[in-house]
Amino acid sequence: MNLPEVLADRFAKDELVAAIAQDHQTKEVLMLAWVNREALELSISTSKATYWSRSRSALWVKGESSGHTQKLISIDLDCDGDAILYSVEQTGAACHTGDRTCFHTPISIPNSSRE
Amino acid sequence: MNLPEVLADRFAKDELVAAIAQDHQTKEVLMLAWVNREALELSISTSKATYWSRSRSALWVKGESSGHTQKLISIDLDCDGDAILYSVEQTGAACHTGDRTCFHTPISIPNSSRE
Repeated sequence: MNLPEVLADRFAKDELVAAIAQDHQTKEVLMLAWVNREALELSISTSKATYWSRSRSALWVKGESSGHTQKLISIDLDCDGDAILYSVEQTGAACHTGDRTCFHTPISIPNSSRE
Repeated sequence: MNLPEVLADRFAKDELVAAIAQDHQTKEVLMLAWVNREALELSISTSKATYWSRSRSALWVKGESSGHTQKLISIDLDCDGDAILYSVEQTGAACHTGDRTCFHTPISIPNSSRE
């Protein structure tokens, strides 16, 4: 499979690349995980977001056991090739806690304008 | 500064945490970089997104030289404490190439419904 050179180079050095999953409609950031070449190629060929689980050292087809799959709409690579953005159609919850997104713990900022 | 325990534990082991910057209004994902404890604490105390540059091994106040600063609106930690989401008000371009976002290289997916 043809991949951008900067990305192929990273995989050739056995580096993992960070993968951000974002809901393609609401634009909510759902989770961050990792991909190796095999995980990315599987994602592209199946249109199912697939990651490399660092804790299990295994391919991880998101939602394979929970049913909370992510259908891939688009993938964009960043400027230095160490991160990709998965735009996905999320079924159910992205987080293993049952929350829609993994980013559900606010860290307070004094003087912030957050509502 | 009081930080969630899972995060404080990572920093205590000298681990870096991935930081995703997202435009707080358009929800566009702008970039991915890294923080150590000092970078995160500075971000919180100044409301200016600050990272740890792995290539320069130095603190990096985003936009300090370019003027393309990121005013922090909120910070959210993920469920396993290895990633944070900066919601920011981006001045100018997030990417050093002049692009609004660093994620500007599409990777094509056969049979995708992307328009």
